[in-house]
Amino acid sequence: MLSKNQIKYVNSLKQKKFREEHNLFLAEGTKIVPELLVSDINVKQVYATSDFFRNNKIAATIERFEIKENELERVSALMAPNEVLAVCETPHYQLEIDSLKDKLTLLLDEIKDPGNLGTIIRVADWFGIENIICSNETVDAFNPKVVQATMGSISRIKIHYTDLSDFLMNQESTIKYQVFGALLAGESIYSKQLPSSGFIIIGNESKGISEKLLPYITDKIRIPSFSHYKAVTGEAESLNAAIATSVICSEFRRRKN
Amino acid sequence: MLSKNQIKYVNSLKQKKFREEHNLFLAEGTKIVPELLVSDINVKQVYATSDFFRNNKIAATIERFEIKENELERVSALMAPNEVLAVCETPHYQLEIDSLKDKLTLLLDEIKDPGNLGTIIRVADWFGIENIICSNETVDAFNPKVVQATMGSISRIKIHYTDLSDFLMNQESTIKYQVFGALLAGESIYSKQLPSSGFIIIGNESKGISEKLLPYITDKIRIPSFSHYKAVTGEAESLNAAIATSVICSEFRRRKN
Repeated sequence: MLSKNQIKYVNSLKQKKFREEHNLFLAEGTKIVPELLVSDINVKQVYATSDFFRNNKIAATIERFEIKENELERVSALMAPNEVLAVCETPHYQLEIDSLKDKLTLLLDEIKDPGNLGTIIRVADWFGIENIICSNETVDAFNPKVVQATMGSISRIKIHYTDLSDFLMNQESTIKYQVFGALLAGESIYSKQLPSSGFIIIGNESKGISEKLLPYITDKIRIPSFSHYKAVTGEAESLNAAIATSVICSEFRRRKN
Repeated sequence: MLSKNQIKYVNSLKQKKFREEHNLFLAEGTKIVPELLVSDINVKQVYATSDFFRNNKIAATIERFEIKENELERVSALMAPNEVLAVCETPHYQLEIDSLKDKLTLLLDEIKDPGNLGTIIRVADWFGIENIICSNETVDAFNPKVVQATMGSISRIKIHYTDLSDFLMNQESTIKYQVFGALLAGESIYSKQLPSSGFIIIGNESKGISEKLLPYITDKIRIPSFSHYKAVTGEAESLNAAIATSVICSEFRRRKN
């Protein structure tokens, strides 16, 4: 049985303010929680049905609460709760620029949609990108909707939050990184030479890359469109931010083959 | 002022049953509705604020209702209604297999998530794919969530619903199409020869491509993963269906460059 206080406590972690205060986040379901249990993420509590506990090994250091499906509904952030909810410690990673030298790194400039951010984290995992550096305006990666959309990749990608223009300004004094930005006037990613390391800036869903970051872009790239139509609303046609990320990452990685 | 009956009528179109009965669908917002107004889609009614009518030309044949923001909220399917809602006639296209001969066509095998379907339609538009053939189990493309996620591409892509195994069985007797399916044991899309025409099957979000469609696949393809990790839950890591579609379509189109 869950106490009123427990229900209140778990539900409070759906809000960024309380996640930050407690340095905790929520993850749910039989796909994601087992991934977290074997990852470097420090899982603190598991609320689950007897079925889940029967089928999964849980370290003795983790607090466990066996609950019924209807109790799970009272704490879940999902439309269809799925056996288990875990309360986990939010990881913090040192952002050491020199450690990024031989790596491909994503810089997210104000990604607002939780589903997009979660999908981008999952894409990064697939394409072997270890670090994502988010602008402070980017949605919280430990928002339950983001965590769900990562399908477990949240445990494998180092996510950092910082001021991206400060970050890019400071990096100019050390190693020279190539900074890629998708812009309408860029060079086709299909024909451009793409290295196996560097920074890729992904812009906001509607505004694209911020003006203040443009001076740091060393290489303008573009995903060619094969559409038979032109948009009529004055805005250019565009791809969803997560889709653009996947096409760009795929092109970078193809060259390694 | 909207009457109670009008509110009820517009809201009824959020349900598939009533969309089919009336052969109508809803589209909303200042990005999508202007695209529909200049497309081949037959827009029947526009409910909008005075601002919208001031800024957009509406053909005389379209019924127009000037309403306030708070009235729009009563018929909108969006969290944040945006000036305009349009009631449109659902288009129906003849599915003539011979007309697909020199084209790249997507076959969607039970895509269930409206956001995924909408994004796939938008991706198809970007990559110049004219037809999408959906299995009867695929979510309705004229569901308001799908329409919104297409960002207007719904007006430019011919969407068909049929039984995919019947469709693929019948096509065997005429022109020989290559049928591509993303499978774990496929050939890397980066190194495989890819033509500028054929069918690409995209499988269900969790189950992948149906068993009954496997015999029709002539070319097994695979998006290589560069991940440093292996999944622990028994399931293979995967990409979201819309992400996989975008990476595959990008690879097919790259070869045309």
